[in-house]
Amino acid sequence: MRSDTITVRTGGEPTVHDLTGDCERFVADEEDGLLHVFVPHATAGVAILETGAGSDDDLLRLLDDLLPRDDRWRHRHGSPGHGRDHVLPALVAPSITVPVLGGRLQLGTWQSICLVDTNVDNAERTVRLSFLAG
Amino acid sequence: MRSDTITVRTGGEPTVHDLTGDCERFVADEEDGLLHVFVPHATAGVAILETGAGSDDDLLRLLDDLLPRDDRWRHRHGSPGHGRDHVLPALVAPSITVPVLGGRLQLGTWQSICLVDTNVDNAERTVRLSFLAG
Amino acid sequence: MRSDTITVRTGGEPTVHDLTGDCERFVADEEDGLLHVFVPHATAGVAILETGAGSDDDLLRLLDDLLPRDDRWRHRHGSPGHGRDHVLPALVAPSITVPVLGGRLQLGTWQSICLVDTNVDNAERTVRLSFLAG
Repeated sequence: MRSDTITVRTGGEPTVHDLTGDCERFVADEEDGLLHVFVPHATAGVAILETGAGSDDDLLRLLDDLLPRDDRWRHRHGSPGHGRDHVLPALVAPSITVPVLGGRLQLGTWQSICLVDTNVDNAERTVRLSFLAG
Repeated sequence: MRSDTITVRTGGEPTVHDLTGDCERFVADEEDGLLHVFVPHATAGVAILETGAGSDDDLLRLLDDLLPRDDRWRHRHGSPGHGRDHVLPALVAPSITVPVLGGRLQLGTWQSICLVDTNVDNAERTVRLSFLAG
Repeated sequence: MRSDTITVRTGGEPTVHDLTGDCERFVADEEDGLLHVFVPHATAGVAILETGAGSDDDLLRLLDDLLPRDDRWRHRHGSPGHGRDHVLPALVAPSITVPVLGGRLQLGTWQSICLVDTNVDNAERTVRLSFLAG
């Protein structure tokens, strides 16, 4: 298994960051297998969705509704309401796999692989890409 | 890795479509490994749940509550409220893996592998099945 | 693929049960590859989150909000409101993969692999661990 990490700058605002280009480059010299995308953080997830037509903002606002940044959370470290970022990975898991054939991701036309990071306390994030040949 | 696509007719209504039979046939001649189920669409997901006892309808109604088909979404293509279908894959991911031993899915008694498609604008869907031997 | 099951006692209350120690021991003698964690039950999921700082309780309370234990569900077997446990796996999937390098899980500092079981009718649960070398 080939495995490597990349660093993504997400800044101080909730962010949906498109990783598709990084993923495409990572598998370009491979044959068939599975790409595994993993975020080694407890307050971020990975989602596959359309970007650039509003759905990334829609997702962040949905997460604000489902996981309000208020004082309901028992987890109390970090910025006010940060506890909500710690339940995010139960809904948007930090791990996803995508099939690869002939060095190409088998994504649909409108699918992008995205880091979902609602944490405003960490401006940089690590993402681990792994390729399991099959 | 053996990989193939099937076409599923989901029609014009939100649908939970059971893929378990297709998955069973796909791995029947394999030995041990992982079955990977992937939906190459930006408005559908894959879930493992019990079917036939009401939970498929319960899920669709829950998604109507969590992701209302109204004008709150920035994504505005397609039918009114279609933007909600574009955040669905962040909650119900389009990718899942199931262990296979001796050509048999290691599902629990009540588990079925299901395509979850709330999009009413696409009556046909593609599902990619891949088997990674291990 | 090496694959085995463990039995977890979750008792009669909704539970977030930390599986990280079991997972670490399972892969300790392996080299590189993917650990696959799978729950063969229709009313439980697997999540990666921080434990011990309140987020496990935060998750269970969030699930009580999103999936109320009342009579809205069509699925009517088991305890009152048990139908909500049957939609849980659509949001918290029963399957997750974690990269392994040199026999060590590549989890972040605050990440734990957890069984999420809101079902109060089953006191014991099975978890299948599989390792796919790569």
